[in-house]
Amino acid sequence: MASKPMPDSLKRLQPYVERALKCWLPPENKGDDLVRAMHYSVLGGGKRLRPILTLLACQAVSGNVEPALPAGCAVEMIHAYSLIHDDLPCMDDDDLRRGRPTTHKVFGEAMAVLAGDALQTLAFAILTDPKNGYRNEQSLAMARELARAAGYRGMVGGQAKDIGKTAHDLDTLARLHREKTGAIFKAAVTLGAIAAGASDRERKALAGYAEAFGLAFQIMDDVLDVVGDPAKMGRYKGSDEAAGRATYPGMIGVEASRRRAQQSVEQGRDALMSLSQPAAELDELLTFVLTRDT
Amino acid sequence: MASKPMPDSLKRLQPYVERALKCWLPPENKGDDLVRAMHYSVLGGGKRLRPILTLLACQAVSGNVEPALPAGCAVEMIHAYSLIHDDLPCMDDDDLRRGRPTTHKVFGEAMAVLAGDALQTLAFAILTDPKNGYRNEQSLAMARELARAAGYRGMVGGQAKDIGKTAHDLDTLARLHREKTGAIFKAAVTLGAIAAGASDRERKALAGYAEAFGLAFQIMDDVLDVVGDPAKMGRYKGSDEAAGRATYPGMIGVEASRRRAQQSVEQGRDALMSLSQPAAELDELLTFVLTRDT
Repeated sequence: MASKPMPDSLKRLQPYVERALKCWLPPENKGDDLVRAMHYSVLGGGKRLRPILTLLACQAVSGNVEPALPAGCAVEMIHAYSLIHDDLPCMDDDDLRRGRPTTHKVFGEAMAVLAGDALQTLAFAILTDPKNGYRNEQSLAMARELARAAGYRGMVGGQAKDIGKTAHDLDTLARLHREKTGAIFKAAVTLGAIAAGASDRERKALAGYAEAFGLAFQIMDDVLDVVGDPAKMGRYKGSDEAAGRATYPGMIGVEASRRRAQQSVEQGRDALMSLSQPAAELDELLTFVLTRDT
Repeated sequence: MASKPMPDSLKRLQPYVERALKCWLPPENKGDDLVRAMHYSVLGGGKRLRPILTLLACQAVSGNVEPALPAGCAVEMIHAYSLIHDDLPCMDDDDLRRGRPTTHKVFGEAMAVLAGDALQTLAFAILTDPKNGYRNEQSLAMARELARAAGYRGMVGGQAKDIGKTAHDLDTLARLHREKTGAIFKAAVTLGAIAAGASDRERKALAGYAEAFGLAFQIMDDVLDVVGDPAKMGRYKGSDEAAGRATYPGMIGVEASRRRAQQSVEQGRDALMSLSQPAAELDELLTFVLTRDT
C-alpha cells in the first residue's frame, strides 16, 4: 500500500531545505571520514519537519520562507546529531534509521560520536555566521533559544530521563516528551518567528502551536511504533516496547492515545487562530501529524 | 617527590574559576544523573589552564580578569565535554582521569555521552546568556570563535584524525595538534581578548601566543606520557604508545621534542612582546608548560 500523500508544503520545501543543508555542511572529502559521516547522517533522508516548521512559522508572520532557511538548517543539524547519538549501542542500539544502516554501523562508534559532536557545533556555527544574514540580536536570540532547547533542560535532559526509565505516569511522560522532542519543535518554530521579526504576541501564538504539534507528533510516533508498517517507517516495529520505554500507548492504549493526539492538534489550531493572518500550511501539518503512516 | 610549584596566577585564579564553573552548571539534584554527571566531569579537578588563559589574555589587554570569566567557563565546558567523549570505550577507552574513574565508569556510557552533549550546549548557552554581561556583538563573536575552534575544522576534526591514525609525519602531526588541542587554546585566549575589547593588533599578538602555547603544551603532554610520573598525572603511563598514537617523542625522540617545545615557548614570548604592556603572567605560564610534571 502506498503511503498517505504528504502535504504540499513538505513536498515543496523539502528539496529547498535539502540544498541548504548541503551548503552548510563542510565540503565532502574522500579521505575525511568525519565529514563523510556528517554528510551521511544529515543527508540520509528524513521529512525535514523541523526546518520546514521554521520556514512556515517565518512565512506565517512575514509571508516569506527565505529568511528562516539558515535557522532551519541549524535546527536540523541539532536533530541529526541527536539521532546519531540516540542510535549508539550504549543508548537505543539501533541498526536501522530511515531504512539505512545507522551512522555507527557504517563509520564505527567513535566516528559516530564525533560526527554528532561536530553537527551540534555546526548548528551554533551556522547561527553565528555572518553569512546567515541575520542581525546581531537575531543571531544571538536564535542561538540562545536553540541552546536552551537542546541542553540539559530540553532535548538531552529528556533523553536522559528516557534511558533512565524514570517516567511511570502520564505527567512525567508528558514532561519527558516536552523535553526530548517538544523543546526542539518549539525552538524550530521560535527561530522562524525570530527570523520573521515576529511580535511577542505572534511568538507566543506560534510557541503554543509548536507545543501542541510536538505532543501530537510524539504520541503518534509512539502509536506508529505499535501499529505502523516497518517497511514504510524504515525501522523495526515494537522497538519502544522492546526497549522497555514508557509510551502513551503503553500507558493508556492506542485508541486513547489517538484521542489525546487529536485533542492536542485542536489546541494547536486554536493557537494559530490568534495570528493576524491564516496559516494554512502550519494547519495542514497538524493534520499530517495525525494521519501520517511513516 | 613533590610536584614543581605552580605559577602564582594558577594558584590565585583556580578557586575563582572553580566557583564560576559551579555557578554556570545547573543546580545539582540527587535524582538527576545527567546533572550529577555534568558536575562530576566539570568539577573533578584539572588545572583550568584554558579559562585561566582567557582571564590572563583579558588582563593583559584591559588590566582586569573579571570580564573574561563567563567566556572562560564556556571554554572549560567545551574542554570538559571533549574529555568525557575522548575517554569513552569506543574512543581512547580510559578508566582514569585526574586520578578518578572517568565519567562513563561512574555513570555508564549513555549518561557520559549525554553529559558531554549537554556540556557542549551549555558552553553556547553561557555565551548567549544576557547574564554574562557582554554586548551583543561580543557574545556573538565569542560564540562564533568557539564554534569554529570546537568543530570539524578544529577540536573534533583533530580528534577524528587522531583516532583515524592518519598522522605519519611531523607536518600532519603538527596539524593534528593544532586542531585537536591548539584550536581551543587559541579560542580561550581570543575570547579573553574579545572580553577585553582588544584591538586587532592585540588580538593578533595574543593569538600568536596561544598557538605557540598550544604546541608547546601538546608536545610536553606527549613527553610526559613517556617520562612522567603516573601518580602525579592521575593516568597511566605510556598510554599514547599503547594506543598506537602518533606523538612527537615517537617521531623524533624525547630530547628533540623538548627542544621543539622550548622553541615554541620562545615564539610565544616573542608574540607577547608586541603587546603594549608586559604580560608577565602569560609569560610565566609558558615556563610552566615547559617544566610541569603533572
